[in-house]
Amino acid sequence: MDVRVGVIGVGMIGQDHIRRITQVLTGGSVTAVNDVDAARAGQVAAGLPGAHTHDTAAALIADDEVDAVLVASWGPAHEEQVVAAIAAGKPVFCEKPLAPSSAACQRIMDAELATGRRLVQVGFMRRYDAGYRAMKATLDDVGLGAPLLMHCAHRNPSVPDYGFTTDMIISDSAVHEIDIVRWLFGEEIVAASVLTPRRTSHAPDGLQDPLILLLETASGALVDDELFVSARYGYDVRGEIVCETGTVALADVSEVTVRTANRYSGRVPVDWRDRFIRAYDTELQEWLDAVAAGTCTGPTSWDGFAAAVVTDAALEALHTGQRTAVSLPERPEFYAK
Amino acid sequence: MDVRVGVIGVGMIGQDHIRRITQVLTGGSVTAVNDVDAARAGQVAAGLPGAHTHDTAAALIADDEVDAVLVASWGPAHEEQVVAAIAAGKPVFCEKPLAPSSAACQRIMDAELATGRRLVQVGFMRRYDAGYRAMKATLDDVGLGAPLLMHCAHRNPSVPDYGFTTDMIISDSAVHEIDIVRWLFGEEIVAASVLTPRRTSHAPDGLQDPLILLLETASGALVDDELFVSARYGYDVRGEIVCETGTVALADVSEVTVRTANRYSGRVPVDWRDRFIRAYDTELQEWLDAVAAGTCTGPTSWDGFAAAVVTDAALEALHTGQRTAVSLPERPEFYAK
Amino acid sequence: MDVRVGVIGVGMIGQDHIRRITQVLTGGSVTAVNDVDAARAGQVAAGLPGAHTHDTAAALIADDEVDAVLVASWGPAHEEQVVAAIAAGKPVFCEKPLAPSSAACQRIMDAELATGRRLVQVGFMRRYDAGYRAMKATLDDVGLGAPLLMHCAHRNPSVPDYGFTTDMIISDSAVHEIDIVRWLFGEEIVAASVLTPRRTSHAPDGLQDPLILLLETASGALVDDELFVSARYGYDVRGEIVCETGTVALADVSEVTVRTANRYSGRVPVDWRDRFIRAYDTELQEWLDAVAAGTCTGPTSWDGFAAAVVTDAALEALHTGQRTAVSLPERPEFYAK
Amino acid sequence: MDVRVGVIGVGMIGQDHIRRITQVLTGGSVTAVNDVDAARAGQVAAGLPGAHTHDTAAALIADDEVDAVLVASWGPAHEEQVVAAIAAGKPVFCEKPLAPSSAACQRIMDAELATGRRLVQVGFMRRYDAGYRAMKATLDDVGLGAPLLMHCAHRNPSVPDYGFTTDMIISDSAVHEIDIVRWLFGEEIVAASVLTPRRTSHAPDGLQDPLILLLETASGALVDDELFVSARYGYDVRGEIVCETGTVALADVSEVTVRTANRYSGRVPVDWRDRFIRAYDTELQEWLDAVAAGTCTGPTSWDGFAAAVVTDAALEALHTGQRTAVSLPERPEFYAK
Repeated sequence: MDVRVGVIGVGMIGQDHIRRITQVLTGGSVTAVNDVDAARAGQVAAGLPGAHTHDTAAALIADDEVDAVLVASWGPAHEEQVVAAIAAGKPVFCEKPLAPSSAACQRIMDAELATGRRLVQVGFMRRYDAGYRAMKATLDDVGLGAPLLMHCAHRNPSVPDYGFTTDMIISDSAVHEIDIVRWLFGEEIVAASVLTPRRTSHAPDGLQDPLILLLETASGALVDDELFVSARYGYDVRGEIVCETGTVALADVSEVTVRTANRYSGRVPVDWRDRFIRAYDTELQEWLDAVAAGTCTGPTSWDGFAAAVVTDAALEALHTGQRTAVSLPERPEFYAK
Repeated sequence: MDVRVGVIGVGMIGQDHIRRITQVLTGGSVTAVNDVDAARAGQVAAGLPGAHTHDTAAALIADDEVDAVLVASWGPAHEEQVVAAIAAGKPVFCEKPLAPSSAACQRIMDAELATGRRLVQVGFMRRYDAGYRAMKATLDDVGLGAPLLMHCAHRNPSVPDYGFTTDMIISDSAVHEIDIVRWLFGEEIVAASVLTPRRTSHAPDGLQDPLILLLETASGALVDDELFVSARYGYDVRGEIVCETGTVALADVSEVTVRTANRYSGRVPVDWRDRFIRAYDTELQEWLDAVAAGTCTGPTSWDGFAAAVVTDAALEALHTGQRTAVSLPERPEFYAK
Repeated sequence: MDVRVGVIGVGMIGQDHIRRITQVLTGGSVTAVNDVDAARAGQVAAGLPGAHTHDTAAALIADDEVDAVLVASWGPAHEEQVVAAIAAGKPVFCEKPLAPSSAACQRIMDAELATGRRLVQVGFMRRYDAGYRAMKATLDDVGLGAPLLMHCAHRNPSVPDYGFTTDMIISDSAVHEIDIVRWLFGEEIVAASVLTPRRTSHAPDGLQDPLILLLETASGALVDDELFVSARYGYDVRGEIVCETGTVALADVSEVTVRTANRYSGRVPVDWRDRFIRAYDTELQEWLDAVAAGTCTGPTSWDGFAAAVVTDAALEALHTGQRTAVSLPERPEFYAK
Repeated sequence: MDVRVGVIGVGMIGQDHIRRITQVLTGGSVTAVNDVDAARAGQVAAGLPGAHTHDTAAALIADDEVDAVLVASWGPAHEEQVVAAIAAGKPVFCEKPLAPSSAACQRIMDAELATGRRLVQVGFMRRYDAGYRAMKATLDDVGLGAPLLMHCAHRNPSVPDYGFTTDMIISDSAVHEIDIVRWLFGEEIVAASVLTPRRTSHAPDGLQDPLILLLETASGALVDDELFVSARYGYDVRGEIVCETGTVALADVSEVTVRTANRYSGRVPVDWRDRFIRAYDTELQEWLDAVAAGTCTGPTSWDGFAAAVVTDAALEALHTGQRTAVSLPERPEFYAK
């Protein structure tokens, strides 16, 4: 019994998830698609035997042949679609961000809380990366003592020449570390600051790149996150957690070591797909498995909401140059554990 | 349209492939099982909705609801089962060894040749490992010049206290390097020698462990393969190919680096499953994809035959203490490329 | 003709330099010693054939058999001794800090400037470490573009239970990064901030450990320096400079890799001596060589002064919790290059 | 009181040792030189204040201002010079090979035995390399169990186009592994075999390169040594000892890691000087220290003799293609420990 998935939004990421469900993963099929661009929806559906298109997201969600909904539309549309899926009592996987504002995330939480049943998994795929999982397992198992610090770097080779703003370094790139820090440390972020180092000459006009984002957790742990989206040399995500009696760091991921021309060397990934493709696979497989089992696992609406609130604080810190406290309400008991 | 797979032999490896097809991979389902132990076959089938059991392998192969056959029975049964699948015109995945004797492998090849269509994929899963694939890509792409040497190590933490013989170090362990060397170098092995170093005190009684297997390829490249099945410290498969202007080696596979107690360290896999689980997944997915596409890829009957012939020579070298030439006939044009 | 060195201060570090000059390095001998503890001076001199003691530093400096002076007394005594050596026209190697206050350093510079001849080398030994030298050579030669960021960590296993203050984390530990950053980047530090993360439970009472020191250079490059003196697991000094098109980082320094008990691992140094012993050797050898050649190389009085000024700013930042600008006068032309 | 050294043979290696004694090490001076090329001897002496030349090695050895003799002449001259130094009761450091034939080495041993006092240190400098020392310390201290195997590689970027013979790959390159294996395993080598893999197209005409040398120790441990003197990519000496419960291997020696152009990479040494310069320094410093202390440490005449006997066997193995037993007499008690 495959989980029959309806996909809302079939741009690049939506199509990639469709490829994943139909060609890589087990236990799922795509039975319906919807997109604001009806022609694109039609083209994608044409390649999917047995799938049909819907004019509206609402119609797709209501479709009896849709067991679960995957939202990969643009951010501003998420709230309405996710809330509709919740209202229909259907499990929904929503790409990050859960919604573009924390208020919208709050409304999604409220809707989910009202049903009394967890239905939403948010697309923070790093939690499914083998590296981060080994890091968390080390924290949990190896006895390094309390975590005190984390050093992160998030390096992209480049961003588009037009349209990528400094704010997006926070909202699109840093949001990954914001979630992963919450997950690894198992506590909330209570303040954010942003530092603006010397700008690389390779950044597009107007982009302040790199940035350093500083995050403080509830227990006082401090995270420095280098965000460098014009780093040129590769896609390189690094992390080291410093604990009381030791540290744990992401290892390099090259499969082979080459020795030539007076160097030994390994490969740095070329892009996020190269680095995290397996994490996306694992993420969506676990979603399908949970849906089939009638459960819900992974990042919750609360996680999406908390990430949005911290992102807001980080953006304010960027704009004001000041350390900015994060105003997060008490976590509903519903989302504990 | 899932590929409907009939599985012959549902011991550990057969059950693992069933788990893979039903819970990990896409595009396949298990519709029939057979085992010499009918009770075991029944138990396994009971956990597979829609699957039924057959009293004989022949009946399973003849089943209209079986599109393709997976042979995971014990080695002596392979020949009859694979030949029957060929006769039925059905694609067949056969776990290594293709057959326990080179003569039997030869008969399988003859049967396949007679059909004029490639139907057999042999289970040399290392060709699907990301490390070996990156190694081969490096040889093909990076311009290191002709390969001259390869250094291999195949270390197991331990083997069972009873029943594991020195011959099995060649036939069960070294056979992996025998195949991977043929594939990486793109040529045949022409001679084998075996050296017997100082024996570890941790080997079971009667086992000569470690061994060094020396292989020579048609172009004169030389491979030394350390085979050490009581290595205690972990499951560690290493390889370095030395070319005219550089080398390429398998990298360590730890996801994280830990710094504690005056050491920085990474993880060594605990067993073959830990090290090669993904290679098995990729292997079987590519088989399912090829079956669905009506093609046949991966290690061929010829590869299974050649490995058997080299294994025979290596065993003779072990028993006689002499360098032993490999007597391989001309490869049929059918298996070129 | 050996350089005849007079050593002022024969505590641990002074005795270590004497051992170095007499048992490790070439071209130097120790002909005179002085210490506030006359008995200790006598004991040390007794082990040095041909060396005699002086009651006062001034007498030692005046000794005709002293070609050059090594100051290893406690910090508050440095100014008077270094100025006296300058007045005597004798080259002087002064352990860090050059003097405990920037005003005192300024007076040393004034004295040296008045002679019109460089006579002072300050003991910032990291500039002589093979790792930092390779890092600087990479910046100079490899074409990574402008340096934008540096990530540092300075981890000690432990500090004494009594007497080590939070201020000393800045003045004793961070001062090394303060100097090395100035040298690597080839520019001055213009501001400092200090962050106080969650405190390790292994720090002595009253010690805020770890700290994060943030330094800003004249060109806007940003340095984050983790200072963690109760890190338990080893003495670990790390550094990575992020440039426009690549990064360069200190490598681990283990001589061998061990594979056992399911880990591969290398050694982390146990203490500063283990990590930097060679840098000290190189530092003092180059000093002896320069003295013999009638030149003066290495860190200057200006470097000692600048480090003191930045240290003052960092201490103020620690005490106030505020980003603190560094007030450094124009560098005298005399110290250019 | 410096050890006054007389240097016989002032070609490249002799001059390098003179530079070492006069500019790097402590406790030694060069007071006399001799060379078959008197003009060269004169030029070298001219740069050494207080040193004079001798027309003959014998005269240099007899010189009252020579406390100890360093033999860096060509191999065929070693025997006479070393024996003369022994006869004069003067400590002598002799570059490898101790003598070009095992018979000549035997006569040196006999001469030394006759004096009843150890006077000879042979220039096997790898025993002074930090990597090999850490390897030996690991074997001694870490409890990895009995050593069973060693994998070595000795890679040179290139050899001269003319004059370098295949025999020299054994006698000049492999001799280093022959000595280091004896030292690391603490036992003698009892047999040698040589394999001739595919030849690199970059080897000079007539040179069989690479080779694999197999060595067997008295306890049955097996060593495979890749000798590749046209390896192009760098000077790379590798070694891994496989013990019953773990392995220890030489680590890479790069001081920094560079990340650029989609690779992370470290430096491979360019030549033996780059790789082993410190080992030479340590070797000669320990010799000077031992001479000053009236003792003799390091590789003995017996070590020089044993290396010569094993080299002879390896050369015979190369020429005959056969495994060749090493015929070593009982070690004189004099050389025990």
